[in-house]
Amino acid sequence: MTYTLVLLRHGESEWNAKNLFTGWVDVALTEKGRAEAVRGGELIRDAGLAPDVVHTSLQRRAINTACLALDAADRHWIPVKRSWRLNERHYGALQGKDKKQTLEEYGEEQFMLWRRSFDTPPPPIEDGDEFSQADDVRYADLGDELPRTECLKDVIARFLPYWEAEIVPDLTSGRTVLVAAHGNSLRALVKHLDGISDDDIAALNIPTGMPLVYRLDDDLRPTVAGGEYLDPAAAEAAAAAVANQGR
Amino acid sequence: MTYTLVLLRHGESEWNAKNLFTGWVDVALTEKGRAEAVRGGELIRDAGLAPDVVHTSLQRRAINTACLALDAADRHWIPVKRSWRLNERHYGALQGKDKKQTLEEYGEEQFMLWRRSFDTPPPPIEDGDEFSQADDVRYADLGDELPRTECLKDVIARFLPYWEAEIVPDLTSGRTVLVAAHGNSLRALVKHLDGISDDDIAALNIPTGMPLVYRLDDDLRPTVAGGEYLDPAAAEAAAAAVANQGR
Repeated sequence: MTYTLVLLRHGESEWNAKNLFTGWVDVALTEKGRAEAVRGGELIRDAGLAPDVVHTSLQRRAINTACLALDAADRHWIPVKRSWRLNERHYGALQGKDKKQTLEEYGEEQFMLWRRSFDTPPPPIEDGDEFSQADDVRYADLGDELPRTECLKDVIARFLPYWEAEIVPDLTSGRTVLVAAHGNSLRALVKHLDGISDDDIAALNIPTGMPLVYRLDDDLRPTVAGGEYLDPAAAEAAAAAVANQGR
Repeated sequence: MTYTLVLLRHGESEWNAKNLFTGWVDVALTEKGRAEAVRGGELIRDAGLAPDVVHTSLQRRAINTACLALDAADRHWIPVKRSWRLNERHYGALQGKDKKQTLEEYGEEQFMLWRRSFDTPPPPIEDGDEFSQADDVRYADLGDELPRTECLKDVIARFLPYWEAEIVPDLTSGRTVLVAAHGNSLRALVKHLDGISDDDIAALNIPTGMPLVYRLDDDLRPTVAGGEYLDPAAAEAAAAAVANQGR
């Protein structure tokens, strides 16, 4: 008996396309991103996978990716669960900033520290900033838990309770689970599943719109380390492109 | 204190456009239907309504209408609940049949009886029929409850338990509730809310993609009989067009 977990990072967003730090800013998918989501759903369908439940963040790009992919997979009718704990990493004061410009302004070392350091968050965003979520009604219940910036370690700390409380029970009840989320919330999950070290996770990139399938054993350990992309060649090329953002 | 309930019939489907009896056949929205859903969401947003939870059927045209409308209303992130009890009326052996052709073949009286009789369902569909849902996995748990045909009375009988158990508690907890559903599941609800007689409900038509808002008092009785369309002129013209289908 193995459990089946399918991870899907949202398709290209308007700010992926513009090369801006996005984080918790709730941008839409581009036409390309919508097509990626549909293609992801077709791959899920063609692989004979049938998600029984989907978990998404509270962000438009993941929510619409789930809608489009599940529609293409003929599983649009399954139950939906959402949580801010699946949101993208909060990028702090970098939200809304151009990646290339930030690289030029702060230099390679600081830029890579903000992007990939395990435990160094960017400077926090101010509540009055146009890209702050301090007044966003969907997060009104979070109180002091509302992040103003996050490093990957912070993402893991807020994601794992949801994993344990909401996703694991779905898996162990035998459901095929789709998690439609973000680059860094999925990196947090993959780090946990594969037992990747704090250093090594920096090099791991998850491409947009490419279903990544994990078969988990009774102890929720991957039967294949790193999982399996449904379209491995496309995923490898896309992951390389993610790693080179800002160049 | 009033409770706020927003009803939204899905936008035009591929089979609305082709003038076929649809029922439980899971057809997609047309481009026009998608635009209607977006417009419905804009009307909801512009009216200052903010749904806190959405209830949909298990059918693609209602699910995608909810996705599109909530995205346009900036409420894409609210909780979603789904049930077969919100599905369109099962049209029995008429599913997949041309409405105009059926009118010509069976005559006005029989045609209107099937379309609008309160308690006379069409002949049941056979399980082997290409438009049957007997083998549809999403209904596998229904067992003997799976309909093979329905009249409006049947729709009311399977819809009301969901209303009482799932929608009323959301309303009375103070949530603004969006129900994204179908012509006949919404007629069942409106009949119940407004206390419309079995005879009079025949003349009531609900247009696609037009938000219909009910403010309900403590006893869940409408403060305005029949509710209020957010775009009354467009709704009136569209309801007249529904009444004339098959002509």
